[in-house]
Amino acid sequence: MNTNEDLLSIAALGGLHEIGKNMYMLQYNEEILVIDCGSKFPDESLLGIDLIVPDISYLLENRDRVRGLLVTHGHEDHIGGIPYIIKQLNMPIYATRLTLGLIRVKLKEHGLLGSAKLHEIDSSTILEFGGVSVSFFRTNHSIPDCLGFAFHTPQGTVVHTGDFKFDFTPVNQQYAELHKMAEIGKQGVLLLLSESTNAERPGFTPSERMVGDHIQEAFHQAEGKIFLSTFASNVNRVQQVIEAAEKTRRKLILLGRSMVNVVEIASKQGYLRLPDGMLIDATDSDQYAPHELVILCTGSQGEPMAALARLASGNHRQVSISPGDTVILAATPIPGNERNVGRIVDNLFERRAKVIYGSGSVTGMHVSGHASQEELKLMLSLMKPKYFVPIHGEYRMLHQHRLLAEAVGVESENIFILNNGDVVDLTGSVARQERKIPDGNTLVDGLGIGDVGQIVLRDRKVLSEDGILILVMSMTKSGGTIVSGPELISRGFVYVRKSEGLMDEVQRLALATITQLQETGANQWAVYKQALKEAVGKYLFAQTKRRPMILPIIIQV
Amino acid sequence: MNTNEDLLSIAALGGLHEIGKNMYMLQYNEEILVIDCGSKFPDESLLGIDLIVPDISYLLENRDRVRGLLVTHGHEDHIGGIPYIIKQLNMPIYATRLTLGLIRVKLKEHGLLGSAKLHEIDSSTILEFGGVSVSFFRTNHSIPDCLGFAFHTPQGTVVHTGDFKFDFTPVNQQYAELHKMAEIGKQGVLLLLSESTNAERPGFTPSERMVGDHIQEAFHQAEGKIFLSTFASNVNRVQQVIEAAEKTRRKLILLGRSMVNVVEIASKQGYLRLPDGMLIDATDSDQYAPHELVILCTGSQGEPMAALARLASGNHRQVSISPGDTVILAATPIPGNERNVGRIVDNLFERRAKVIYGSGSVTGMHVSGHASQEELKLMLSLMKPKYFVPIHGEYRMLHQHRLLAEAVGVESENIFILNNGDVVDLTGSVARQERKIPDGNTLVDGLGIGDVGQIVLRDRKVLSEDGILILVMSMTKSGGTIVSGPELISRGFVYVRKSEGLMDEVQRLALATITQLQETGANQWAVYKQALKEAVGKYLFAQTKRRPMILPIIIQV
Repeated sequence: MNTNEDLLSIAALGGLHEIGKNMYMLQYNEEILVIDCGSKFPDESLLGIDLIVPDISYLLENRDRVRGLLVTHGHEDHIGGIPYIIKQLNMPIYATRLTLGLIRVKLKEHGLLGSAKLHEIDSSTILEFGGVSVSFFRTNHSIPDCLGFAFHTPQGTVVHTGDFKFDFTPVNQQYAELHKMAEIGKQGVLLLLSESTNAERPGFTPSERMVGDHIQEAFHQAEGKIFLSTFASNVNRVQQVIEAAEKTRRKLILLGRSMVNVVEIASKQGYLRLPDGMLIDATDSDQYAPHELVILCTGSQGEPMAALARLASGNHRQVSISPGDTVILAATPIPGNERNVGRIVDNLFERRAKVIYGSGSVTGMHVSGHASQEELKLMLSLMKPKYFVPIHGEYRMLHQHRLLAEAVGVESENIFILNNGDVVDLTGSVARQERKIPDGNTLVDGLGIGDVGQIVLRDRKVLSEDGILILVMSMTKSGGTIVSGPELISRGFVYVRKSEGLMDEVQRLALATITQLQETGANQWAVYKQALKEAVGKYLFAQTKRRPMILPIIIQV
Repeated sequence: MNTNEDLLSIAALGGLHEIGKNMYMLQYNEEILVIDCGSKFPDESLLGIDLIVPDISYLLENRDRVRGLLVTHGHEDHIGGIPYIIKQLNMPIYATRLTLGLIRVKLKEHGLLGSAKLHEIDSSTILEFGGVSVSFFRTNHSIPDCLGFAFHTPQGTVVHTGDFKFDFTPVNQQYAELHKMAEIGKQGVLLLLSESTNAERPGFTPSERMVGDHIQEAFHQAEGKIFLSTFASNVNRVQQVIEAAEKTRRKLILLGRSMVNVVEIASKQGYLRLPDGMLIDATDSDQYAPHELVILCTGSQGEPMAALARLASGNHRQVSISPGDTVILAATPIPGNERNVGRIVDNLFERRAKVIYGSGSVTGMHVSGHASQEELKLMLSLMKPKYFVPIHGEYRMLHQHRLLAEAVGVESENIFILNNGDVVDLTGSVARQERKIPDGNTLVDGLGIGDVGQIVLRDRKVLSEDGILILVMSMTKSGGTIVSGPELISRGFVYVRKSEGLMDEVQRLALATITQLQETGANQWAVYKQALKEAVGKYLFAQTKRRPMILPIIIQV
């Protein structure tokens, strides 16, 4: 690292050209500040992988310089990596009360709560790290207690928006600090990092209140029990469900671990107002008439093990859905989840429920938590940055966000579309982008963090498509005589009992291959194995158009 | 099969509670008529499977009664199963000219063209099969030359709509035969089978003409080359691309095998009007200025090997995308394909192309080929059936279609939501649903048809998630002494060189397990193997939270 005085650097360790795994860093000379530490789910090519977290090699190499992790809000794509990263680098964590509450749950699960260094902040906090002073502004999003950051350095101010939208009629009076943002912009912003999730969407994202209105309407019309499924972390939506329940005199049952957790944390901390006596236990549901009950549950993305899926298939022990009950899916299926959500709707209709489902823009039961194009322009207009780095999103989103920035007057050459690991260096308030730091995906598989690499994944892919065929034989030490085998063992390739002819033929071919090699004088087992792989592989492909993994095993006796 | 005189039966062998794999049958006493023979793609749980086609056990059991296969139109979900099924049961095939052309391509690929029995029909054909007379009516859909069927039996008329929409301004004057439908309805319909794909969508599906208007507008505005990607089989959309090219004096290049095939067949048969000299070869593209070219290509669903994906990543040998070129994705991504389509859009933006992408309802570059709710009600109103069976679709679609039928006056108890294999029997024009015939998925994997079953798939699943750990040892015949091993071979589980400690421990555990069993007097290898699986599996799960397949191999020496 260049230790030249007054070097200000910005980079992403995750979150660019992807959705999720957000992690950014700001370095001012010897001080490194980290922003967020998210996870993301693997796509279907990463077989068996549970989670992806950022590769923090750069931070580990510079561990003495890392001053802390500042967290914008409590969603998984911003906090999900914390337990895995903290094990490697136990930096102090700064976050608001609710965010910290959610981080604590994670740390506890990983047995890290005792050793973690947690610091509660709010939007009025000022933090000082060497030459950098950090102030905060409150934003609106689909979880309460979100912050944007302003890093004040001698070179100028760097702003990181976090996830945001502008909701002028927020639930629970969680107003965004519009005037603070304006003041920061007025004082001058050197560089803005702003989120791009909805940069492809024209217009203005509707207020969360709109969902509340639709929920109330549905509650007034419903006759039997009401089931509503949404993201547990959307505390403001949960609040609106509670209000609708209050108005229609229904008791509330919570189903699903994360729903119970979040409601407990949020109501303890005062982010959720829960009338006394409204919450009842699922086991007491039979003491109430159907029209006296609302069941708020997890599983709105069709997760097969979550409460809604179990309710839909009639496998919930305590509560059941009866004909005429109303089920509201207060969420838009995330691409990839449509099939699972669809299956649940099918099951709900088979139980003769009334189902409100589909995209939020059609049903009015969901709005995004992210700024659409007009709101992104509003943020850009408030901040009036000299330099702009669109963050959070795939290339097409970053590209669209660039177009928006150009439209409101940011100079084209002052907009940087970065890759993870690309560094923007600022000296004398002038930016250039020339160097890279290490970045990457750390794969979590069970208890293993980063131990599954390309070879293991490639093997899983081959195994998943056509299985494995194992040829076992024993030979004398000299390599001259086959004592037993080849025996064939197949898994995931063909059902052996139905493929005896094929297996006999492979056995014959294997023997012939070895014999032929021996005649040419070859006696190394590696040569035998390679020849068996090729001959058997070729034969099987010709016969079946499949390419199982061929694994010859030769045992010396 | 009941051979009672005058028994009319209807059943689905595919297409109910699913999208794709459409296959229906109508049996009148001894005559069986089959409708469509589609395929569908496997979901991600069917690892390594290429295609799913219907299980036709029932037809094979009754092969002497099967009179023919009548095909509604040439989409994969209606013809994709034909080569696989014809190998088992070579029934005569009846289809319109274009549909037959597409079927011929498939049969040729499978070497079945010589033996197939193909009969060309059009909407004026009347076919007679024993007591059943079949007449046809032309419908609108996203491929030309589609038919609905009317089966006239002594008990009454059964109508099967095939896929349809109502397009009052069709391209190429392919008007739906509305008056014929009205006449059939007027004469009385005993039972209607009508497609449900868009039964969840309110309103009326826009005309394909709307897409043509948007294509023309985009062509007029474009400055460089124009790339447009759509479904090759949407001949009418291809026609509109040709017309827009003609108006803007551009030459046409076709990329992608299916695009070339379909344009060739459709223009030979007169379904496509291609001006002389418009079509040029991709290798001649450098003889024209960018504004003189349109490239029509496959790959609108993001298929990684198709023309558009190769163009987007700069890997096409003959044509390249330059900054300022226009790329139009004239398709809505089918759920599951968003990620691949998104990746292509990212790549196109990186090449600085102008990209028109997103859902057709936003860009106007795509309309559905299926009837929305008002059109489904129109069909129901025209046919006025006594009995109604919604077909083609998941349960939620069939359910919504039922609600539409009730709304237009079909008696609730006369609507049957069936499963594949459920039979509706009609005697004396009265329907009941009490029995089942065999149905199911036949899985195609490479050259194997139906040979991959639950065991193989379960093994693939285990292998894909956590790989395999093989323990090989040799033992004396008596089972008393381990001669060599246990050696460990791991694939897709952990990278062995980085997990030596774990492997040593497994080896030690395996030895201890065998020794312990021997002390209790056990000497059967099956017992040893089971004990090894359990002990090693348990140990590895505790250490890694992974569950690889454990495969002990004991060789006798």
